[in-house]
Amino acid sequence: MSSIFTGSSLRLSVFGQSHSEAIGMTLDGLPAGLPVDLDCLQRFLNRRAPGRNDWSTPRRESDRPEFLSGLKDGKTCGAPLTAIIRNTNTRGKDYDALRVVPRPGHADYTAHVRYGGNQDYFGGGHFSGRLTAALCIAGGVLLQLLENADIAVCARILSIAGIEDTSPFEVPVDEKIFPTVSDEKGREMQAAIAAARADGDSVGGVIECFIRGVPAGIGAPMFDGIENRIAQLVFAIPAVKGIEFGAGFRSASMRGSEHNDGYLVSEGRVRTRTNHAGGILGGISSGEDILFRAAVKPTPSIAKEQESVNLETMQAETLHVSGRHDPCIVPRAVPVIEAAAAIAITDLYLGGRQDGFIRL
Amino acid sequence: MSSIFTGSSLRLSVFGQSHSEAIGMTLDGLPAGLPVDLDCLQRFLNRRAPGRNDWSTPRRESDRPEFLSGLKDGKTCGAPLTAIIRNTNTRGKDYDALRVVPRPGHADYTAHVRYGGNQDYFGGGHFSGRLTAALCIAGGVLLQLLENADIAVCARILSIAGIEDTSPFEVPVDEKIFPTVSDEKGREMQAAIAAARADGDSVGGVIECFIRGVPAGIGAPMFDGIENRIAQLVFAIPAVKGIEFGAGFRSASMRGSEHNDGYLVSEGRVRTRTNHAGGILGGISSGEDILFRAAVKPTPSIAKEQESVNLETMQAETLHVSGRHDPCIVPRAVPVIEAAAAIAITDLYLGGRQDGFIRL
Amino acid sequence: MSSIFTGSSLRLSVFGQSHSEAIGMTLDGLPAGLPVDLDCLQRFLNRRAPGRNDWSTPRRESDRPEFLSGLKDGKTCGAPLTAIIRNTNTRGKDYDALRVVPRPGHADYTAHVRYGGNQDYFGGGHFSGRLTAALCIAGGVLLQLLENADIAVCARILSIAGIEDTSPFEVPVDEKIFPTVSDEKGREMQAAIAAARADGDSVGGVIECFIRGVPAGIGAPMFDGIENRIAQLVFAIPAVKGIEFGAGFRSASMRGSEHNDGYLVSEGRVRTRTNHAGGILGGISSGEDILFRAAVKPTPSIAKEQESVNLETMQAETLHVSGRHDPCIVPRAVPVIEAAAAIAITDLYLGGRQDGFIRL
Amino acid sequence: MSSIFTGSSLRLSVFGQSHSEAIGMTLDGLPAGLPVDLDCLQRFLNRRAPGRNDWSTPRRESDRPEFLSGLKDGKTCGAPLTAIIRNTNTRGKDYDALRVVPRPGHADYTAHVRYGGNQDYFGGGHFSGRLTAALCIAGGVLLQLLENADIAVCARILSIAGIEDTSPFEVPVDEKIFPTVSDEKGREMQAAIAAARADGDSVGGVIECFIRGVPAGIGAPMFDGIENRIAQLVFAIPAVKGIEFGAGFRSASMRGSEHNDGYLVSEGRVRTRTNHAGGILGGISSGEDILFRAAVKPTPSIAKEQESVNLETMQAETLHVSGRHDPCIVPRAVPVIEAAAAIAITDLYLGGRQDGFIRL
Repeated sequence: MSSIFTGSSLRLSVFGQSHSEAIGMTLDGLPAGLPVDLDCLQRFLNRRAPGRNDWSTPRRESDRPEFLSGLKDGKTCGAPLTAIIRNTNTRGKDYDALRVVPRPGHADYTAHVRYGGNQDYFGGGHFSGRLTAALCIAGGVLLQLLENADIAVCARILSIAGIEDTSPFEVPVDEKIFPTVSDEKGREMQAAIAAARADGDSVGGVIECFIRGVPAGIGAPMFDGIENRIAQLVFAIPAVKGIEFGAGFRSASMRGSEHNDGYLVSEGRVRTRTNHAGGILGGISSGEDILFRAAVKPTPSIAKEQESVNLETMQAETLHVSGRHDPCIVPRAVPVIEAAAAIAITDLYLGGRQDGFIRL
Repeated sequence: MSSIFTGSSLRLSVFGQSHSEAIGMTLDGLPAGLPVDLDCLQRFLNRRAPGRNDWSTPRRESDRPEFLSGLKDGKTCGAPLTAIIRNTNTRGKDYDALRVVPRPGHADYTAHVRYGGNQDYFGGGHFSGRLTAALCIAGGVLLQLLENADIAVCARILSIAGIEDTSPFEVPVDEKIFPTVSDEKGREMQAAIAAARADGDSVGGVIECFIRGVPAGIGAPMFDGIENRIAQLVFAIPAVKGIEFGAGFRSASMRGSEHNDGYLVSEGRVRTRTNHAGGILGGISSGEDILFRAAVKPTPSIAKEQESVNLETMQAETLHVSGRHDPCIVPRAVPVIEAAAAIAITDLYLGGRQDGFIRL
Repeated sequence: MSSIFTGSSLRLSVFGQSHSEAIGMTLDGLPAGLPVDLDCLQRFLNRRAPGRNDWSTPRRESDRPEFLSGLKDGKTCGAPLTAIIRNTNTRGKDYDALRVVPRPGHADYTAHVRYGGNQDYFGGGHFSGRLTAALCIAGGVLLQLLENADIAVCARILSIAGIEDTSPFEVPVDEKIFPTVSDEKGREMQAAIAAARADGDSVGGVIECFIRGVPAGIGAPMFDGIENRIAQLVFAIPAVKGIEFGAGFRSASMRGSEHNDGYLVSEGRVRTRTNHAGGILGGISSGEDILFRAAVKPTPSIAKEQESVNLETMQAETLHVSGRHDPCIVPRAVPVIEAAAAIAITDLYLGGRQDGFIRL
Repeated sequence: MSSIFTGSSLRLSVFGQSHSEAIGMTLDGLPAGLPVDLDCLQRFLNRRAPGRNDWSTPRRESDRPEFLSGLKDGKTCGAPLTAIIRNTNTRGKDYDALRVVPRPGHADYTAHVRYGGNQDYFGGGHFSGRLTAALCIAGGVLLQLLENADIAVCARILSIAGIEDTSPFEVPVDEKIFPTVSDEKGREMQAAIAAARADGDSVGGVIECFIRGVPAGIGAPMFDGIENRIAQLVFAIPAVKGIEFGAGFRSASMRGSEHNDGYLVSEGRVRTRTNHAGGILGGISSGEDILFRAAVKPTPSIAKEQESVNLETMQAETLHVSGRHDPCIVPRAVPVIEAAAAIAITDLYLGGRQDGFIRL
């Protein structure tokens, strides 16, 4: 029962397989009366959609959500919001060969053991990156809610194939097809992707995300703080293998006097001079930008031959993966990271209006 | 409602403040009939306890848990397991000055906003590292359950203050006072801690943890997979700012052909030649070692002067933190990381016996 | 976030409004490999479907679920099971008049306050009895799982309009169009329904349900026992206003010596001579039939004039409800009660395989 | 994992066994800054405490909670609130005989099966009515929170041993030792209890509870509405076998025209002329009194001989229960019902401040 997220104020159910009738999501706990701009949502989904450029799979899916429930006259009505996307462009025969020969780096083998061979192995089934479209429907709606509250969520490509864009991340890059801050670094990264593709190989990268405008005092200590919640949602994205907040792993080699963010008063508000904490102390927002980075592994589907095992015969077998795959999913993962962040922070933000403290 | 963890099969409630009557935990969902070796548990807790050596705070707490419920004749009886540790060595007056002048790097300010000034600010209250003793009671009991199932959880210091111990991590180091694999590197790290202490400063580090013996097929995709669950629990430890699994952030600069762990058959079992995945694919265990690293920031409590703000007058104020503090909490955090890992994996392990698949 | 049920091993999301594009459900946590007989499921759904006879609304909906995900080759595949039913026969104009004049006995007024006027008031929106079709999809699938485990769930009409069928409830009556044990009593009840309809009025009744074959030892004390779980699910059915287990309210006037079910050994098993406990002690199954009764209020939609208030003008207004309504929903509620019971008991049954106790 | 309640905004952990070191509770999710009047709480707990009069067990427990955490200067501080009550007056030897001979009407047998013989059978262990003292600590604190919000929760004895007090329930009766509205009926009930005691037997009864002052619009449809939530908590009280809301089971024989509560405007507010709905429509409060009744079975511990079975020999055995037991627990259960209602309604009340709707 792992595909339903239970947060402090939201619940999100994600369903579907790569080649099932449809994928979709149900979001429960949204306030009523929230206008949902479907064109704006579609533009957000298009940023994730495949087939738009050189570095993504040519599989074309319209990724047009159909809303089944939860809306009335263009606004949320308090009932669960459900939307689906039909899977139209399925090519099951590509996958028959993979039934008993698991692809390295995919969940084929672990799913086989977990579900006793009953899993839907077509296109990775429920483990497919395609399910992130459902995350993006939820996240895209919540980004609109957050925008109403003057909270912005923006991600960028920080590095691909070891090529790092060290430019400061001050403004959104979501208008760009290839969302780096430095266009020059972006071109280098695209060259690295093209080179990997030419080799029948793939590359990974790091995505950086900030959440700006969250007031101080949102979140909680222990198990449901901001880091815990964002991490839980970001690791729902296939291929993410690490996450860090603020100075992150770099904190480990800093001294306290350097890492601690000193306080000052600016325009009547308490601010910090630096933001090594990534806007979070004790699981609670400080009012500074919430900042995190996620490591995305190279796409496991590659054209190169790989070692595998036939699970029926238990003999070694050389695997040739055919089909349509991205040599690098990092660009398409950027809006998915934003979606995960939006889900996490909205959950805590709505929940934060609830308990807090009592004024007598 | 953030201090109660709700897992797939376990629930864990952690309570207490640094200077309240007691801290403690309730663990619900344990199978009945599990023998609990209290001496073994005490040895585990002693690894976290303060005051044992040069690099930890001289505050001495016996950290002897009193079990209030859940045991019968030395075994779990199916009822919730509750244990407390009395806070005996409290020195509240140290903290009076801090009521309205938040310490940088601590949760003082964010808690003040969150709880409207009602928070217990003595010693960091519920945000104190002392609460990790409660995590260790739960984790220490579950390590015994896992041992019965031939699952071992072991952590080591990978780096402190930028000094890295690159030795392969093959065997447990939990017998060591300073748990590095290389003793020489350990001595270098201790020197770095001593140097920081001499400067009235502090240092951080990285802890690496493996979980060995988890059978393939434990966990789930999406929101409650192994990475999500471990991350949710590890970020409950104050000072953790990042987590990565397997090759982690290094994955981002690898190619797919290098990162994918090829399958082979060894002694009749499916194995992988490498373990860049850290034993997890699609949120589910592969049978290889589950491997992760957590970044621990430098202790925020330092003797050096720091910039802060008086929250009542909204004037800048220079802060001198007195009291007893560790110049480096990494050594004491090692068993806490093991505890968090044990809670996460037991939760999924017990849950995994439940659904799985049907044999007809 | 109330339309997603979070159980011990199952999660169930129910979505849709009376007049939205579709209603549906997602069931997460099912074991993989469970064959789903769609014909059998359809027969179960037909027992709830409207328009089949004299005492139900003439609104005709095919109630044919479309499965969007979770099945592979006719069996569950471990991924969430999602099915929807399109709403084809919607007549929105019937409801325009009701926008600001709430129908007594319905949730119109409370939803108006709760959702600030944004609720979907067509046909009761998310509060409509139509949503029980989604419960029945989930329940119908789980009844098949339970049948594999030799557990039977059967409900009957115990009374309607005060006419009680006191016949012992030994065998299923699910083949009957009007599921009473005594056909004579059934005819009396049908006459009472016809009389109410002729008066533009409605009647309620009591449904009795047993669950047979649950082994002893399923369930738990306190908050998630069998009674708690069944009650939580049965009160999800609109119109249910009471529930009792075993001797129920009659227990209150019994003496302990009469109420206590004495133990005996029969065919090598521990049994009880009577079953006043309804098969449950301390929230845990005893191995006897689990037995409960639910009170169903008379359908609130009646043709008779009623007193109401215009929420805009705050003036009294006389209400004439038009549209298509059942004079008695009790017959159609019988399979819904079975569905709720199946969800509750499967959740605990699957969960019960998980913790229990350890054999060393 | 059944002894931790997970609500919409509160989590409550209840721990302890009848004869363990202590019983207690942790309540998480309380707003910070709530003053807790410990004397007022003690007076509430005293209403449940044993040994005060003729109809309760002479076992004397002080039932004085010790607060371990969650308070600062007499107010909640945002951290989990934990309190324990030591078990001082334990007489384990009374129970040795019961280890393998289960008492009819108790959970002895079902717990034995559930926990494989590892359960704490002294005094019923975790199944003991003594655990309701922990519910009352939580409920007692929340009653103070509700009082601040002008919400009152009051219960009364409606019937015992079939003797019903039909007096209207307009005002609280919590000052009375024997909380009936009619003192004359109260005396009749006490006589019935005395008669049962003289026979070595016991009697049950019905408790009625109202919650007054809940604004319209609190709660939700489906699984987490007011009925679901109250039922889940009330069935956590051992001995409760039924619950009904408003007209309850009587609804089943009413016509819609009689049952529907017509709307009117009174003092500028929407009210209903009658309250057959018990203040709840669609799981949401209407602003009228929330009203429910719970059936309490006769105390299972009786002095009379009973039929049982020796679980080791599987031979019939006649059981003589010694020890100290109430011939009727209904009077002591009255504050426990109030506590359960307070937990349920506070959970939804605090949660209701969270989502609701958006004003743009």
